[in-house]
Amino acid sequence: MATYSKEQILHLEDRYRRNLINSLMGARPAVLIGTADAKGNTNLAVFSQLLHIGANPPLCGILFRPDSVDRHTLTNIRETSVFSINVLSAQYAEKVHQTSARYGVDVSEFEAVGLEPEFTKSCVAPMVKQAHIKAVCEMHEEIKIAINGTILVIGAIKWIEIEDNCLRNDGSIDHYARKSLAVCGLDDYGSLQQVARFGYAKPDRKPEKT
Amino acid sequence: MATYSKEQILHLEDRYRRNLINSLMGARPAVLIGTADAKGNTNLAVFSQLLHIGANPPLCGILFRPDSVDRHTLTNIRETSVFSINVLSAQYAEKVHQTSARYGVDVSEFEAVGLEPEFTKSCVAPMVKQAHIKAVCEMHEEIKIAINGTILVIGAIKWIEIEDNCLRNDGSIDHYARKSLAVCGLDDYGSLQQVARFGYAKPDRKPEKT
Repeated sequence: MATYSKEQILHLEDRYRRNLINSLMGARPAVLIGTADAKGNTNLAVFSQLLHIGANPPLCGILFRPDSVDRHTLTNIRETSVFSINVLSAQYAEKVHQTSARYGVDVSEFEAVGLEPEFTKSCVAPMVKQAHIKAVCEMHEEIKIAINGTILVIGAIKWIEIEDNCLRNDGSIDHYARKSLAVCGLDDYGSLQQVARFGYAKPDRKPEKT
Repeated sequence: MATYSKEQILHLEDRYRRNLINSLMGARPAVLIGTADAKGNTNLAVFSQLLHIGANPPLCGILFRPDSVDRHTLTNIRETSVFSINVLSAQYAEKVHQTSARYGVDVSEFEAVGLEPEFTKSCVAPMVKQAHIKAVCEMHEEIKIAINGTILVIGAIKWIEIEDNCLRNDGSIDHYARKSLAVCGLDDYGSLQQVARFGYAKPDRKPEKT
């Protein structure tokens, strides 16, 4: 068994510590965020720090690293207020990861990695044609996390598109049907295998599989 | 293809909307948070709204629903400032889900669902013996998200324990070895199957599998 105290964590080599802390809890969604600047230049980048903030009204959160270096996605959201969230299947893992390369502001990741932009409802933020789940969001608020300068963007969900075979009768998404991409840490991509789905848990009995 | 505008989402039946929005982006970690009140009464509850806030210093975030109803975990964290995060394997899915039942404040979920508490370094927050990854955190800050009253708790990671076969040489966690639990939405548990691990992406070449 490996153990680390806070002091030991702080003395780890940078890359080792980043891998350890980033991957500690396991699977996160690996989605592509699509944006455009005020001139309509498109951008696409992989994000895994997503939160479900609420369903009514429908809200999501994305955590951004401190904005000391180029962050085209955040800059574009600040400029145009809108962004798209796109869930792709496992077969696109390489393209999804490649969007994390530092392309210049003049390069669209759509073209660079080989994915197609798609637009809806005169929204400037591009969706990804190849995605089986797409959502368009409007920036509601930025919350700065003082201790390390990360920024939580709260987005109001304005539009959702879901391929038919991914939507169950109760509104939940079947992420197995199309092998939605997930990621551990920065670079370890996977897709979920179902273990079990349970009914609402009650104190006086065992959970029922549904 | 199913499409929903914001207006349509707002008019969906409550449960359908909750399922849809909550499961939209896919896999999240399904971890058990262990806490104790000032008298040492232990509590255990499943959470999936986790963020990696930063590695240096090591920080994590947990999102809590609005505190209008009993939230033993948040109450305990406010009382004692500490909590543990525990990653369990797929075989414990039923027990993990069962911690979401509304047990009274006098019932410890450890006993109710059949898991064992374990303590380290005189910290009052119990860890879960059966977990293959354990972390102890200290509350750093609470951030209230105004639009819907959810609360983001920022925790400083103070202690980590990892079973040997889950830790790679580069510090990253192998979540496949022990089938770490993940969840889509509220009740759909799974574990990851690896798709590929890639090296750092560069603009001028394809990503390398590592």
